[in-house]
Amino acid sequence: MKIDDNFFMKLAIDEAWKYQLLTYPNPAVGCVVVKNGEILAIEAHKTAGEAHAEVNALKAAFLKKNPNDLLKLKKTSDEIHQYLIKNHNNFFTDCIVYVTLEPCNHIGKTPACSNLLKELKPKRVVIAHKDTNKEASGGIETLKNANIDVSLGCMQKEAYDLLYPFIKWTESTFVFFKMAMTLNGSIDGKISSNQTLAYTHTLRDKIDLMLIGGNTVRTDRPTLDARYIAGRSPNIMIYSKNKIFDNNIPLFKIPNRDVFISDDLFKLLDYKFVMVEGTYNLMNILKQRIDFVVLLVNPKIRKGLNAVNEIDIDFEILHENFIGSEKVIYLRKKD
Amino acid sequence: MKIDDNFFMKLAIDEAWKYQLLTYPNPAVGCVVVKNGEILAIEAHKTAGEAHAEVNALKAAFLKKNPNDLLKLKKTSDEIHQYLIKNHNNFFTDCIVYVTLEPCNHIGKTPACSNLLKELKPKRVVIAHKDTNKEASGGIETLKNANIDVSLGCMQKEAYDLLYPFIKWTESTFVFFKMAMTLNGSIDGKISSNQTLAYTHTLRDKIDLMLIGGNTVRTDRPTLDARYIAGRSPNIMIYSKNKIFDNNIPLFKIPNRDVFISDDLFKLLDYKFVMVEGTYNLMNILKQRIDFVVLLVNPKIRKGLNAVNEIDIDFEILHENFIGSEKVIYLRKKD
Repeated sequence: MKIDDNFFMKLAIDEAWKYQLLTYPNPAVGCVVVKNGEILAIEAHKTAGEAHAEVNALKAAFLKKNPNDLLKLKKTSDEIHQYLIKNHNNFFTDCIVYVTLEPCNHIGKTPACSNLLKELKPKRVVIAHKDTNKEASGGIETLKNANIDVSLGCMQKEAYDLLYPFIKWTESTFVFFKMAMTLNGSIDGKISSNQTLAYTHTLRDKIDLMLIGGNTVRTDRPTLDARYIAGRSPNIMIYSKNKIFDNNIPLFKIPNRDVFISDDLFKLLDYKFVMVEGTYNLMNILKQRIDFVVLLVNPKIRKGLNAVNEIDIDFEILHENFIGSEKVIYLRKKD
Repeated sequence: MKIDDNFFMKLAIDEAWKYQLLTYPNPAVGCVVVKNGEILAIEAHKTAGEAHAEVNALKAAFLKKNPNDLLKLKKTSDEIHQYLIKNHNNFFTDCIVYVTLEPCNHIGKTPACSNLLKELKPKRVVIAHKDTNKEASGGIETLKNANIDVSLGCMQKEAYDLLYPFIKWTESTFVFFKMAMTLNGSIDGKISSNQTLAYTHTLRDKIDLMLIGGNTVRTDRPTLDARYIAGRSPNIMIYSKNKIFDNNIPLFKIPNRDVFISDDLFKLLDYKFVMVEGTYNLMNILKQRIDFVVLLVNPKIRKGLNAVNEIDIDFEILHENFIGSEKVIYLRKKD
């Protein structure tokens, strides 16, 4: 196997995918720091408001070689920035930094990563994809103006797939369809482990809106909250022509959530980050409006409800992660 | 992410899985060489008769730092052994070698890896799993007697899963069940791409025996050769009580292959490496006799034939590889 820029960037991309969709409204970003050929850190941005991938990776890299340094006590992005700028002692000048997205150039909730890199002066920064967000872009210029060698475009396709939800929710609306199934596509009964259910509830806690079919609401009488992680219950659009529902269905009883009933999918455009929960029938109806399908797969084979008659969708597998012994598969419809 | 022994061993294990089942009768083995923290090589044993994983990795590591060395002209395992022993110039004394299986200690088709390592004197050898083959074992002692620091047991469970086919075909018989399906488990029609079919034919070229159900033979009238790779056609057991078949079915016409018809599964024990090709029905019948299920998955969702009524099998996902845009998933039944 070749151990080259692509190899290191792939490590950064895979690390970032662990937090895909969980960084909303920020992009999922990964970063690897290599010093004289040695991998010192593989880190990612984990949740909005916390340190960016570069900051996590630069901190981890410095601590890998200086495990007792006071840096380990610095927790906020601001503290880490300030400490590293004061105390780097040219540690990074023989480092290569691989980052899946152009380092941010603006001071938002955290200081600008481009400025931190400018001060630390790594000998090279390899960037997979340019920032598409005008407000934050310009990081490459900042680095180049500081005479840092910048390479752009390594694993750009894979970085684009990683960045895709961010691009969509920044420009308009990102819609993903979540479905749990067995290895052979059966969907009835309890499919997922509690660990995987907790992942679903983590997603529910992040989204702006959940879309669910009217028939599911009538049949399953769901709650649709985020109780497995004590999270926020999402707002809900029930996709239904018939507006009559039993108000005793638990989802209507949750305080501090909006629920509306509509068959107008244009309403989705009022939201940035939408999860659809459903099965094959709804997937087939919505297939032109779904950006990702997120499949939660329990590796068992059993007879059960499966695909509807008319469905025929080709996918590209963008990434897969394990959740315990189960899998989450991120898919995008092929054109 | 922690960059520790487990991290490097995982790279070795993943590389070895790329050649899982293709190294028969040898085990699939991976090896990583790290010099002063820098990964120099990630290699595997690729096919029986060719160089072992350690030899491939030591050669690649040396060439990574000495790209124009004459070593690049050495192709056979013997040549590489001899050249490295003469010309290593203490290159490896600050290296750590990660290998998924105890280095072999006997001279077979290739010289002993333990002897090569003894001469090259890496500062440490990390081994995931002991060799279960008495003839080849003893490598750890050889290394320890040469005062090389040896660590045993890093990622042992994962290395055991990798080694499992070898353990089974060495002791008795390894049986795997191959099935192609869509993402949602549909099995009818042409599922796989030609690239995936070529993988199936590569497996057919390696095995001692293919088992196939009598109904499939009668209905599909298959050839069951390895024409996609111009390989050897496997011997065939048709699993059927009824011994009457139309002799014009193409599989009977292939020269230099044995075909027999039987419903006695004990006959499998006369073979070391058996592939079953079939679908849910045969999988369910044979589930107690199958070591691995190898699923070839085309990521599309469509309505089609799926699981039989009574099937209910829980699996552990051992590993997955991409074949182009499709997947091969290695599964073991949970007890």
